[in-house]
Amino acid sequence: MNKRVINFNAGPAPLPEEALKRAEKDFLNFKGMGASLIELSHRASPYAEIHQKTIALFRKLLKVPESHHVLLLGGGATLQFGMVPLNLLRKGKSADYVVSGVWAKKASEDAAKISNIRIPFDGAEENYTSLPEDVVVDPNTEYLHITSNETIDGVQWKRWPESPVPLVCDMSSDIMSRPIPWENFGVVYAGAQKNLGPSGITVVVIRNDLAERSSDHLPAYLDYRRHIKGESLYNTPPVFSIYLMGLVLEWVMEQGGVTEMETRNRNKAALLYQYLDQSNGFYKVPAQKDYRSAMNIVFTPGNGDFEKTLLKEAAEAGMLGLKGHRSRGGLRASLYNAVPMENVEMLVDFLSSFQRKHGG
Amino acid sequence: MNKRVINFNAGPAPLPEEALKRAEKDFLNFKGMGASLIELSHRASPYAEIHQKTIALFRKLLKVPESHHVLLLGGGATLQFGMVPLNLLRKGKSADYVVSGVWAKKASEDAAKISNIRIPFDGAEENYTSLPEDVVVDPNTEYLHITSNETIDGVQWKRWPESPVPLVCDMSSDIMSRPIPWENFGVVYAGAQKNLGPSGITVVVIRNDLAERSSDHLPAYLDYRRHIKGESLYNTPPVFSIYLMGLVLEWVMEQGGVTEMETRNRNKAALLYQYLDQSNGFYKVPAQKDYRSAMNIVFTPGNGDFEKTLLKEAAEAGMLGLKGHRSRGGLRASLYNAVPMENVEMLVDFLSSFQRKHGG
Repeated sequence: MNKRVINFNAGPAPLPEEALKRAEKDFLNFKGMGASLIELSHRASPYAEIHQKTIALFRKLLKVPESHHVLLLGGGATLQFGMVPLNLLRKGKSADYVVSGVWAKKASEDAAKISNIRIPFDGAEENYTSLPEDVVVDPNTEYLHITSNETIDGVQWKRWPESPVPLVCDMSSDIMSRPIPWENFGVVYAGAQKNLGPSGITVVVIRNDLAERSSDHLPAYLDYRRHIKGESLYNTPPVFSIYLMGLVLEWVMEQGGVTEMETRNRNKAALLYQYLDQSNGFYKVPAQKDYRSAMNIVFTPGNGDFEKTLLKEAAEAGMLGLKGHRSRGGLRASLYNAVPMENVEMLVDFLSSFQRKHGG
Repeated sequence: MNKRVINFNAGPAPLPEEALKRAEKDFLNFKGMGASLIELSHRASPYAEIHQKTIALFRKLLKVPESHHVLLLGGGATLQFGMVPLNLLRKGKSADYVVSGVWAKKASEDAAKISNIRIPFDGAEENYTSLPEDVVVDPNTEYLHITSNETIDGVQWKRWPESPVPLVCDMSSDIMSRPIPWENFGVVYAGAQKNLGPSGITVVVIRNDLAERSSDHLPAYLDYRRHIKGESLYNTPPVFSIYLMGLVLEWVMEQGGVTEMETRNRNKAALLYQYLDQSNGFYKVPAQKDYRSAMNIVFTPGNGDFEKTLLKEAAEAGMLGLKGHRSRGGLRASLYNAVPMENVEMLVDFLSSFQRKHGG
């Protein structure tokens, strides 16, 4: 096998090599059954067992309390932008949406199609480089929606907002990177393709009583209650994505769990931000210090536009995925759980020699 | 590698071994890139190329005309039970649903939550063993929904109904098994996990003008127009499922395409039905002859209940997946594209020796 590329993709993103190797080993002949796991019924063992084990491991790692259901669904976080208000935002009521970046905006736009929403904070004026210190929540609102980490804008909530109503949170790009204080959260949802596994699977954690709000007029797939009753087997699940997510979660457990991930992520991000801040303005970080993401380090040239040159030289150095999102330009290094510290060190070395070479 | 099990699962179902082997070979290191395909951005090559190639190959194999879009979505056919009426069934209008079995019934129940539906045929009284000769369609209806093959009940449309309104068809369990006369079809949708690939991906083919019916009040993921505009990359697609679907389609092409699949499927089903019909009542096929499925051969003991014994002896003979659906009991052999004739011959040999052994 060739050397692994140094992968800073924002999602789909690098997965732990150990998890990939286990999946490869069993791919053609799952546990001696003479078939691939993806050729077997989702209602029979071995898949049924993997399904339950993966949910149990997710619960264990993030200490999800009995008060919350854990669902595995298809359609991505984008489908949840619609399903959350379709299920939780009752007719004539309203919800509060913090618009902290590109993803929060998309979530709010879907909700606005269902009922009234109120936007207590909009970061657009500051080009989404900060988050609110406090959010003044309408106490009559159905829920307060936030986006824990903005993958494109590089800002992340460090201190959760206080809220008299349930918090609903899109955690697609930082779930499993730090513990979650569940008592604040009514719903947490996350597309898997950053810290949990491959694309094609979305985790939804929902407080039992909130799941009961759903209207009887929702088509089956859109109704959380169906998936709760069916234990995420109401219809055929994305078998391979869930299986691989299970292997990734096993890896997280073996590494020391979520608090270990948090420590590593904090250290990786600190190293890179520290370097960028000390580059004498050669590199610039738009996000304000208190809100900088530990997952997606968004930066730009301080002067000029050397992005293309940098991306070319990075590719030559075996580094992938440093291009900023197409809607925003600039540069971005995503440092999810599966990115080891040594890759961040190599990135800092590369950025430093690039700076020496190209002046500054 | 162990010998492949003889797999008659109804879905997830056996896939061509060649396709699985290609996926395994490239799994850890995709085309020398030093990463798995599932770790790479869905907007960059190589995935972006695979995405377009898979859609193009699907179009080519089934001769999809320019008048129709081909979409790749998540959520399964079950999500389409809701998306079809949400997009196509306008307020105050109605749609006709033929209820031919368990799956058609589910589709009709979702539509009934959106607006009025009319049921021109319901096979429940005959326990879903037949299909209508003719369907009298309300000419003012939005569309006529049918289910081309009922996986659980074992009936399949052989001659498409004439309809003054667009046909909408759930082809989950027989797509790619025979050509499709597109001029009749407004929408065709299919979960992949029978003839197309692994679970986690759903194909939707929709006539351009019908896609324009959607209301502006649909959340983004539920609006076909978003996926058409985004070329099924509006959000992160289920990368691995689409990739493997592409490999399966390449295999279909190499084997001689859809007409070759049709011939093989007809021959496989004929062999098994012929044997069952000549078993002197030891085995019984509930489905009426004109409507018997070439994909899912549903049968029961003529007398007594030897299912458990048969399943046990089948397992000992290396045969998997012959249990009837949990809602219906009995036995079922699914003979999708990837099931070779020799496996059906082995099944007939097994059923025949089982009959000799257990009387009859």
